[in-house]
Amino acid sequence: MPVVTLQVLGTLSDEQKRELSRRFTEDLREVAGKPPEYTYVIIHEVERTNWAHKGVLFSDK
Amino acid sequence: MPVVTLQVLGTLSDEQKRELSRRFTEDLREVAGKPPEYTYVIIHEVERTNWAHKGVLFSDK
Amino acid sequence: MPVVTLQVLGTLSDEQKRELSRRFTEDLREVAGKPPEYTYVIIHEVERTNWAHKGVLFSDK
Amino acid sequence: MPVVTLQVLGTLSDEQKRELSRRFTEDLREVAGKPPEYTYVIIHEVERTNWAHKGVLFSDK
Amino acid sequence: MPVVTLQVLGTLSDEQKRELSRRFTEDLREVAGKPPEYTYVIIHEVERTNWAHKGVLFSDK
Amino acid sequence: MPVVTLQVLGTLSDEQKRELSRRFTEDLREVAGKPPEYTYVIIHEVERTNWAHKGVLFSDK
Repeated sequence: MPVVTLQVLGTLSDEQKRELSRRFTEDLREVAGKPPEYTYVIIHEVERTNWAHKGVLFSDK
Repeated sequence: MPVVTLQVLGTLSDEQKRELSRRFTEDLREVAGKPPEYTYVIIHEVERTNWAHKGVLFSDK
Repeated sequence: MPVVTLQVLGTLSDEQKRELSRRFTEDLREVAGKPPEYTYVIIHEVERTNWAHKGVLFSDK
Repeated sequence: MPVVTLQVLGTLSDEQKRELSRRFTEDLREVAGKPPEYTYVIIHEVERTNWAHKGVLFSDK
Repeated sequence: MPVVTLQVLGTLSDEQKRELSRRFTEDLREVAGKPPEYTYVIIHEVERTNWAHKGVLFSDK
Repeated sequence: MPVVTLQVLGTLSDEQKRELSRRFTEDLREVAGKPPEYTYVIIHEVERTNWAHKGVLFSDK
């Protein structure tokens, strides 16, 4: 019954989203026996003005 | 002091958001005695390219 | 395909959780046509030392 | 190893985001000894149609 | 700069957590070129009384 | 109308939580004009077995 939430800086291509979702879901099946029909993967693409590291926005780096 | 976060695939109309917020807030008052002035409802509409089920993006279904 | 996350101060009884989950799921069906088999409700009970309002922890109020 | 997620109604200017990120990161260093290189700050700007208080969307207030 | 949050019903063993974290991080490196030193994986194990599907708590199923 | 969610590895003392909540709330007032009566700070203390960096659980480091 897993929900995987991926927060990522910037954008991903549809192909990257497709492949990551497939792998995360498969990882959960293989490692923890979670059936794919219960697994959700939700992706949040975060703009560089909305994410900071070391106190500095990525848009300022 | 509740915060309800609703993640939903695709979009909702303003009327749906209005009614869901009203009901969730009322549910919390009736069932758990939570005063509406403390309840926040936050809605995240997630694009079909950003949500997968069974390892497949909804945009691919 | 909704995921409802409820963050609540303190604890809820099992009966309150049961009833809130039932109502939230039903609200989504009635208002937005979301089939119950796709709806998850996840509850986080947050201790009073871990939630602040107006800059003051609830455990200090 | 902190992740600070700020959900805010409406938008912030880049200057506000810059200063809030700087301060949150510094607060964590001063108060809890968390090294800035481990601190992420992620900002979610939520539209007024997607946030309700007292059961009413802010866009309706 | 990814943060992966895994919400899972019930508990995982340390070995399952270890392997899932390793794989998620590796998936992000292989598929999207995300360097492992920027990837956090955070796991939330949710009790069966705190997760509902189809409007019914798992503890009631 | 901000909600600040702090995810932190391990535990914080009550005094650290108290001071961080006070500062985050004050930062939001000073930098963005957010009134303290609308600001929630929610703290999640995450165990070392539930957080990984570079694909390795902190409990294994």
